[in-house]
Amino acid sequence: MNHDIVTIGEAMLRLWVPTGERLETAPSFRVAVAGSEANVAMAASRMGARTAWVSSLPDNALGRRAAREVAQHGVDVDHISWSDEGRMGLYFIELSGPPRPVAALYDREHSSMASMSSSDVEWPVLESARIVHISGITPALSDSARSLSIDVVRRSRAAGAMVSIDVNYRRKLWEPDECAKTIAVMAEYADLLITSTEDARDVFGFDGTPEAMLRDLQGLAGTSRVVLTAGADGAFWLDGLESGSAAGYVAETVDRIGAGDAFAAGTLVGLLDGDLSGGVERGTAMAALKLGIYGDQLSVTREEVDRVIEGHSREVSR
Amino acid sequence: MNHDIVTIGEAMLRLWVPTGERLETAPSFRVAVAGSEANVAMAASRMGARTAWVSSLPDNALGRRAAREVAQHGVDVDHISWSDEGRMGLYFIELSGPPRPVAALYDREHSSMASMSSSDVEWPVLESARIVHISGITPALSDSARSLSIDVVRRSRAAGAMVSIDVNYRRKLWEPDECAKTIAVMAEYADLLITSTEDARDVFGFDGTPEAMLRDLQGLAGTSRVVLTAGADGAFWLDGLESGSAAGYVAETVDRIGAGDAFAAGTLVGLLDGDLSGGVERGTAMAALKLGIYGDQLSVTREEVDRVIEGHSREVSR
Amino acid sequence: MNHDIVTIGEAMLRLWVPTGERLETAPSFRVAVAGSEANVAMAASRMGARTAWVSSLPDNALGRRAAREVAQHGVDVDHISWSDEGRMGLYFIELSGPPRPVAALYDREHSSMASMSSSDVEWPVLESARIVHISGITPALSDSARSLSIDVVRRSRAAGAMVSIDVNYRRKLWEPDECAKTIAVMAEYADLLITSTEDARDVFGFDGTPEAMLRDLQGLAGTSRVVLTAGADGAFWLDGLESGSAAGYVAETVDRIGAGDAFAAGTLVGLLDGDLSGGVERGTAMAALKLGIYGDQLSVTREEVDRVIEGHSREVSR
Amino acid sequence: MNHDIVTIGEAMLRLWVPTGERLETAPSFRVAVAGSEANVAMAASRMGARTAWVSSLPDNALGRRAAREVAQHGVDVDHISWSDEGRMGLYFIELSGPPRPVAALYDREHSSMASMSSSDVEWPVLESARIVHISGITPALSDSARSLSIDVVRRSRAAGAMVSIDVNYRRKLWEPDECAKTIAVMAEYADLLITSTEDARDVFGFDGTPEAMLRDLQGLAGTSRVVLTAGADGAFWLDGLESGSAAGYVAETVDRIGAGDAFAAGTLVGLLDGDLSGGVERGTAMAALKLGIYGDQLSVTREEVDRVIEGHSREVSR
Amino acid sequence: MNHDIVTIGEAMLRLWVPTGERLETAPSFRVAVAGSEANVAMAASRMGARTAWVSSLPDNALGRRAAREVAQHGVDVDHISWSDEGRMGLYFIELSGPPRPVAALYDREHSSMASMSSSDVEWPVLESARIVHISGITPALSDSARSLSIDVVRRSRAAGAMVSIDVNYRRKLWEPDECAKTIAVMAEYADLLITSTEDARDVFGFDGTPEAMLRDLQGLAGTSRVVLTAGADGAFWLDGLESGSAAGYVAETVDRIGAGDAFAAGTLVGLLDGDLSGGVERGTAMAALKLGIYGDQLSVTREEVDRVIEGHSREVSR
Amino acid sequence: MNHDIVTIGEAMLRLWVPTGERLETAPSFRVAVAGSEANVAMAASRMGARTAWVSSLPDNALGRRAAREVAQHGVDVDHISWSDEGRMGLYFIELSGPPRPVAALYDREHSSMASMSSSDVEWPVLESARIVHISGITPALSDSARSLSIDVVRRSRAAGAMVSIDVNYRRKLWEPDECAKTIAVMAEYADLLITSTEDARDVFGFDGTPEAMLRDLQGLAGTSRVVLTAGADGAFWLDGLESGSAAGYVAETVDRIGAGDAFAAGTLVGLLDGDLSGGVERGTAMAALKLGIYGDQLSVTREEVDRVIEGHSREVSR
Repeated sequence: MNHDIVTIGEAMLRLWVPTGERLETAPSFRVAVAGSEANVAMAASRMGARTAWVSSLPDNALGRRAAREVAQHGVDVDHISWSDEGRMGLYFIELSGPPRPVAALYDREHSSMASMSSSDVEWPVLESARIVHISGITPALSDSARSLSIDVVRRSRAAGAMVSIDVNYRRKLWEPDECAKTIAVMAEYADLLITSTEDARDVFGFDGTPEAMLRDLQGLAGTSRVVLTAGADGAFWLDGLESGSAAGYVAETVDRIGAGDAFAAGTLVGLLDGDLSGGVERGTAMAALKLGIYGDQLSVTREEVDRVIEGHSREVSR
Repeated sequence: MNHDIVTIGEAMLRLWVPTGERLETAPSFRVAVAGSEANVAMAASRMGARTAWVSSLPDNALGRRAAREVAQHGVDVDHISWSDEGRMGLYFIELSGPPRPVAALYDREHSSMASMSSSDVEWPVLESARIVHISGITPALSDSARSLSIDVVRRSRAAGAMVSIDVNYRRKLWEPDECAKTIAVMAEYADLLITSTEDARDVFGFDGTPEAMLRDLQGLAGTSRVVLTAGADGAFWLDGLESGSAAGYVAETVDRIGAGDAFAAGTLVGLLDGDLSGGVERGTAMAALKLGIYGDQLSVTREEVDRVIEGHSREVSR
Repeated sequence: MNHDIVTIGEAMLRLWVPTGERLETAPSFRVAVAGSEANVAMAASRMGARTAWVSSLPDNALGRRAAREVAQHGVDVDHISWSDEGRMGLYFIELSGPPRPVAALYDREHSSMASMSSSDVEWPVLESARIVHISGITPALSDSARSLSIDVVRRSRAAGAMVSIDVNYRRKLWEPDECAKTIAVMAEYADLLITSTEDARDVFGFDGTPEAMLRDLQGLAGTSRVVLTAGADGAFWLDGLESGSAAGYVAETVDRIGAGDAFAAGTLVGLLDGDLSGGVERGTAMAALKLGIYGDQLSVTREEVDRVIEGHSREVSR
Repeated sequence: MNHDIVTIGEAMLRLWVPTGERLETAPSFRVAVAGSEANVAMAASRMGARTAWVSSLPDNALGRRAAREVAQHGVDVDHISWSDEGRMGLYFIELSGPPRPVAALYDREHSSMASMSSSDVEWPVLESARIVHISGITPALSDSARSLSIDVVRRSRAAGAMVSIDVNYRRKLWEPDECAKTIAVMAEYADLLITSTEDARDVFGFDGTPEAMLRDLQGLAGTSRVVLTAGADGAFWLDGLESGSAAGYVAETVDRIGAGDAFAAGTLVGLLDGDLSGGVERGTAMAALKLGIYGDQLSVTREEVDRVIEGHSREVSR
Repeated sequence: MNHDIVTIGEAMLRLWVPTGERLETAPSFRVAVAGSEANVAMAASRMGARTAWVSSLPDNALGRRAAREVAQHGVDVDHISWSDEGRMGLYFIELSGPPRPVAALYDREHSSMASMSSSDVEWPVLESARIVHISGITPALSDSARSLSIDVVRRSRAAGAMVSIDVNYRRKLWEPDECAKTIAVMAEYADLLITSTEDARDVFGFDGTPEAMLRDLQGLAGTSRVVLTAGADGAFWLDGLESGSAAGYVAETVDRIGAGDAFAAGTLVGLLDGDLSGGVERGTAMAALKLGIYGDQLSVTREEVDRVIEGHSREVSR
Repeated sequence: MNHDIVTIGEAMLRLWVPTGERLETAPSFRVAVAGSEANVAMAASRMGARTAWVSSLPDNALGRRAAREVAQHGVDVDHISWSDEGRMGLYFIELSGPPRPVAALYDREHSSMASMSSSDVEWPVLESARIVHISGITPALSDSARSLSIDVVRRSRAAGAMVSIDVNYRRKLWEPDECAKTIAVMAEYADLLITSTEDARDVFGFDGTPEAMLRDLQGLAGTSRVVLTAGADGAFWLDGLESGSAAGYVAETVDRIGAGDAFAAGTLVGLLDGDLSGGVERGTAMAALKLGIYGDQLSVTREEVDRVIEGHSREVSR
């Protein structure tokens, strides 16, 4: 089977507590699976795309848990590299509201994915995909992951796949300038570059209006297709000279983690249809829906997204 | 014992997940009992009214659960028709906030109540009541339930009980015009007709100001006593030529299901006292309190409602 | 992809409470997915077999939940018939110990599967399988399901698949003699017939030693390959003139539901390898492991089963 | 309505943790309602008897919780004395297995019930009952409760009700000789006296065979009807010169609290039918069922008890 | 070891349900430990102060739970008076939002602390402290606790400790004028007096601007150092002629209980550093953080408080 | 303060699921703190000993959690080395019964403790202790931990502390012969050597009767004081030529992890009193109590242990 979208990156077990509880004192941690690229694959699969997720996992109960949870959303997990070395990456999350930020405590060093190298990848899976998607987290994991990431975008592009990159800066993993430099290299092969306004400013030093930022990003990428997310203010896109935006939604937030990945998935699904504008619009609705759902994954149906876009009105559907 | 208020209608098991969780993935469902008329009986009982609830339930653990939970709030459940046929109606609820509507997945077909007929009813219980209350959900359940519903209002009125009808339109059960037609027949026997602004518009095609809608409703019912709810905007009433309204409350919402039933109960309690205005005021406070409590039932005391009406001020009572 | 094992049958949502709690009073029900043939597919998939599960599910959150949960264990769910009619079958379980039996309250009437007919089946999936497995529950669901079941075994056998039948008598669904008659018809096409000692006695009226029962079963089936389970006493098999048995295990029981399906899966995996004796041995270990795990599914690895068969000794592995 | 059985005594909120957890460290306590006489009323109600429970409760959320939970099982709670003074009695329970005993930490001093006096009782409810039941816990609560208890048995007997007393010695409340003396006074008015072998020995100093103990008890009571429970060994009875016993059951235990009350309820139901032997048999089955259910209450149906008595065999009923 | 801050007061077990649940119906209560002075000690300890908490506790599982939970936050609990008499104080809390107030149901009468007298106190612990802190709850508990409270402030002041008093009026414990009179006596020995605007108005009858209230308070206390809290509006202070204020924070509230204690702890930590202004600023941030954490305790690190004061910006820290 | 017992070793967060659940599928993991030497310190503290626990922990929420949980049981945690490097060790546990072993999945590599070296230790704390206790897990963590462990026993012995070693072999950490060699070196400095029968056989190759094993152990250690545990069969000891044993208990098991540490703590408490025989007896009772409590810690009081030793009889204490 050829895939519409293949993503590559690390999955972690997310051990978390809801708003009001603390990691230091909670009697139990809820368990989920997370990872930017896996999230994108799952959300895109739920929109109807044929997706695969490529990664390296330890061959133990935690690694199996990750693979099975991703598979559950319809993603092909048959191309994972199972490793006897390395551990399952973990991260601990306390959901919260202002004035306390949502705090992530990463424990992902020495993970199987951090030591994955190009020789562990089933390249035909990526090379036959319509879109290959990767985030800026993967090159930040380790030196070998950085080489792997560059290989991924280079070989995928060479094989004819469209390449999508989401900057997704993580300051607990690397410095802004390291990120900027690496993304610059990878963006040479990109057909689509997505970033948040925050990252555009903190990593690349861009500022000004969204339009200005988009033009700056266009200068960076090997493509003229760039997308800028602005949280509750929606998203903005530039495709060559064409541009547009999608308005944000009023949304009740229980868990903001994963909203960016939901957005990326929607955008990619639009890209598959040759409709970046529609993709950005869909992504914006998906990000808004994600805020109301616990966990990194956007567990919704395509119909639910459509209804949000169309703006149905009753507060209770019965 | 004669009852102040007797209600008749279906109870369902409500299997639900709180905001942020999904029916597709939650590890467990919380269990409650629900049903518009049962809710009204429970809430009215908590306000001090002597109430009974008439229904048909399957003779199994789920049916027993429903009866016992209703009994717990002080409602007389000795007049339920226990059936060897039919199943317990179920509904699955995901609480949520915008942009995702609260979604109800009904699984109530083939329920014991759907096949209840007039011969299963202990008529003296209804005929000796001061008020008999029914919602527009009951006639929507099945053909036999429609006949039963019309019998209920006709025979109760004939016996001297006041008849109260809450339109409560459910578009997953029937079409607006079917609802409108049936309510029109039933309203001939009504002493009180309650509806939401949304239903007044969607079912009857009324629009304009609340006052205009109330006058249109008056034209429909066999009585001049009509009440219109408007969510956070409060409620409006018309009794012959007299009219009035009750302001809504600022309320923190965790579960909006059942607010309409809480309102109806308050209104009926006012009606018992010959004070429709006070009832609408009480109902508005009860609906606001319901928003902050999980489950369809308004598990409060009369004192708590009084305090809301009086507007006590400290955020913490200690 | 050709499958090693394809199973066909209903899945239900299992709403359950652990030992000590009651359906009448528990504040929440845990949710799992169950169904004899789906269980067999999941357990066999975990042993390394390429499996698919064929069924009909309602196109709603509950149906999606069932499909995703089965997919999670590696089973191909792409050949499910999604139905706009029919509901999701449910069953409610109270786990318990003596003197109270584990009680199942079925609410599976009017399910999508009950109205599935031969025209809803993707026959090539079954016809290209190495083994097609069905239980005696499927023909008990409805008249159409009975026709479908007979079609399944007839067409699969005709296409060259091995046919496996597990009697799995459910007295809440049909009478013993109806079951006996239908199984007799289906067994004409069987390459393997599995039954418990209890069912052999209650449905077919067999008694005496396991060996005598096996010979009687051999007379019934279109194959000489018959297997008899005896709970804690292990299992017995007869293949032509060859015979053997596997000893049961001392096992701490938390949830006995699904042990028979785990056994069947192990036996089928043996059959794939042309090793019925090894399969029965594996199935016996799998059934013992199932007793110690909540839910209908045997969520174990092949290595864990191997270790039980080999009899490792430390109570704590660290 | 005349009642079959009226019981009088304290209810407490039971705050508890399951086996393996400790009161000192558990993150939450489960909440139930308990109290020997309330338990008897609930269990008897479930067997079909018309029951009422008389008590005094504080007029707050905890008191209301107690009344509603008792009502839920079909018991008439309209004759409770609601008090502005006194608190809700509490007790904290850690379930456990050997070598650690199930430990009860009582916090019941200053409860509303402890200060209930004869003037707070609606005597006609007791005087019109067929059976009035009280345990030895009630007179142990306070001096006023002791007077009240003696009044209860005296006035009930005088009015023609049968009086039943369950010794139920609690060493955390009083000394054995105080208990013995008080029970001796109360037993003058008893038609039935129930005690455990342990209490017969520790409180009254009886020993020897069950038969010998029963004869000694007969000497104590104002009636010749005495019953002795012996845990897993069943129960023994003596009625004038007639005697008999009921064998105990093999039972999986999750919560042994309340088994004695379940037994008493079964015995009383037999007494209602003029069949002490059948009552003791029923009580023994009810006590065995209680062991497998969390909470003080025996939440079962009469049919479930009948099935245990008849000895149905399948471990799973489906 | 000499302590920076020693507090004295009652601890209670807090049995609570989150917003949306009710004490009357919730299946379980969460368990925490609470008590104004204990809360202050815990929060101050987390800010780095060496603290001790002095109290009287019953020598049972509940008392031990209280001591251990306080110890967990680094507070010295070696100077608690363990009592064989008296019970553990309890309070039951329903968190909630408008229009329903957070309701506290106290069950603290007859507690060990209520009967603590001066002879039960290890005076050297208080006398060697830099600050001794007490709230207006302690003198409200009982007559002996009132004497004890006055002794505490008198002897501590005499020994050279700074004395801090938080008015903390509880109308369920005493009348405003009793409180006013007692605080007036205690304030003679105070180096710091803290009160809320609400209490300043309800207890002392002060009104007008915060500045006016502070001046009135100054007239009351034996010190010129007074602090006034104003909820979301922040806090105000007056130290001799110097004055200042700290702005409140926008905060998502899940549990407002304990915010005042968190504020007091921050203020005391500032006082230790001779920086009342900085203490009020820290206290305001700590109170805001408390609103987003379940339980009476402020389970945060000093770094988290610093980050709030400095105003870091990203909503998610990763 | 001088300590009675100081232990040194790693603590881990224990993320666990109860019997019947699986790490692969459980929706949440319960969280506890564990580590052999920390467990011993906590259990000994609960018996009244003044204890400290020395370790290295990462300075984050997980490390703080560990320290606070240990402190809660009265252990002095002021001598922990807080590290900016290294992670919190984790282990994942599935409780279970036969035929499935309790499986521990360790994720403790790269922990702060694994890189602790002698220069991180506050030696005076160990040197002033009456007993210093360490298990064979600590030297197995890393090369530096092995050096540290040998330093610990050498320097403590030299300073006059009694040295206690519990072999505690973990085959997931090292090979039997490595363990044997290291223990042989450390045992030169030991005043007490504890091992299980299993480890005596698997690590040292000893067999025969307990007495024979004890004599072989005596040959190994620098002391004549050796103790051998035999699970449900109790424990055996040899002190010079004196010897004895303690019978095991019938115990209901919910969590067997930590029973060995509970035993060691009891033995050490006996050693403090110069009563090895009494210590072994106490340890045996403590191990039996641990089996019935979730978590690695023995959360009991000294009185509860005494009651088990004395053999009180009622199953319910009330």
